[in-house]
Amino acid sequence: MDFYPVAIEKLIEEFGKLPSIGYKTAQRLTLHVLNLPKEEVEEFAKALIEARGTIKYCSICGNYTDKDPCGLCSNPSRNKNVICVVEQPKDIIAMEKVREFNGVYHVLHGNISPMAGRGPSDIRLKELISRMNGEIREVIVATNPNIEGEATAMYISKILKPLEVMVTRIAHGIPVGGDLEYADEVTLSKALEGRKQI
Amino acid sequence: MDFYPVAIEKLIEEFGKLPSIGYKTAQRLTLHVLNLPKEEVEEFAKALIEARGTIKYCSICGNYTDKDPCGLCSNPSRNKNVICVVEQPKDIIAMEKVREFNGVYHVLHGNISPMAGRGPSDIRLKELISRMNGEIREVIVATNPNIEGEATAMYISKILKPLEVMVTRIAHGIPVGGDLEYADEVTLSKALEGRKQI
Repeated sequence: MDFYPVAIEKLIEEFGKLPSIGYKTAQRLTLHVLNLPKEEVEEFAKALIEARGTIKYCSICGNYTDKDPCGLCSNPSRNKNVICVVEQPKDIIAMEKVREFNGVYHVLHGNISPMAGRGPSDIRLKELISRMNGEIREVIVATNPNIEGEATAMYISKILKPLEVMVTRIAHGIPVGGDLEYADEVTLSKALEGRKQI
Repeated sequence: MDFYPVAIEKLIEEFGKLPSIGYKTAQRLTLHVLNLPKEEVEEFAKALIEARGTIKYCSICGNYTDKDPCGLCSNPSRNKNVICVVEQPKDIIAMEKVREFNGVYHVLHGNISPMAGRGPSDIRLKELISRMNGEIREVIVATNPNIEGEATAMYISKILKPLEVMVTRIAHGIPVGGDLEYADEVTLSKALEGRKQI
């Protein structure tokens, strides 16, 4: 239905390509953009181009960066002997917010999922292995606590064992502030399994 | 927290300015954009610029258009003697989907809302009055069925009466397929008020 001029339809289509944005939302965003000052729209367009154009992956850890190696890998105060393995760059943000971890990272950019046809060669595992230079004390696997994340963690543990690197997995359990009553069985069983003497 | 390179933070900020998009969503959209082929991002940016740059308001009805007058106003098969008044361009889409109305439109670009400090001079009412050239048979007021929309409808009726133009209001009532039990009192009272002999 061609009620809108081509340029509007085109922008609605572009917004609609973004994840979790349907036609109605895309329409609303487009009409919002049409009412913005021209300079603001130009700035938005420029931000798109610049983000995509200047951002690359860090050649060491695989995080997004505008210089190579990235700020974390080139930071002399970070402990290069401990590597935290995560699935996505945004997981680094989550970890950094905790302010507990002072090592470096390794971004897999995905996980192993036989169901979805993603094998070990589809994620940055070769790159992880090549970082095992004999000085790595520990590899903390912080993939997501779901089937794919667990499978990925298992696989990493298996391939790093022969290299005599300590591989650890972040703990599963009842979230702090959570209610035992509402915890699902798997989490509760993991919490029980990981119990500690007090 | 400066975990992301500047260009990424900037794009997250730009996405976050859009209505109903918070930081988390803006972050997700940005990471999605970073994974897109460069050409697609450039196309998105171009669509933004072009939509904002080429789209203007139709000088007659106020709808978005890329040529003036717009496709609806310049369509010889539309009845120019009946004007449907709506609040926003997207309301035209809703009306056109019904395929029942063959007149032309007038977009107010807002409504009268003393609460929000929007008076008659803040919407396109002068433009509506100037369209009353003696040939207009009917003005159908299709503003939204809420307090502001009703106030706007009343005001339009009042200012057009002296010009001897028939002003009508779209009917309120129980939606088709709706359940009497769940209708709110105001809608039900409007439905009763607008009852017709069968």
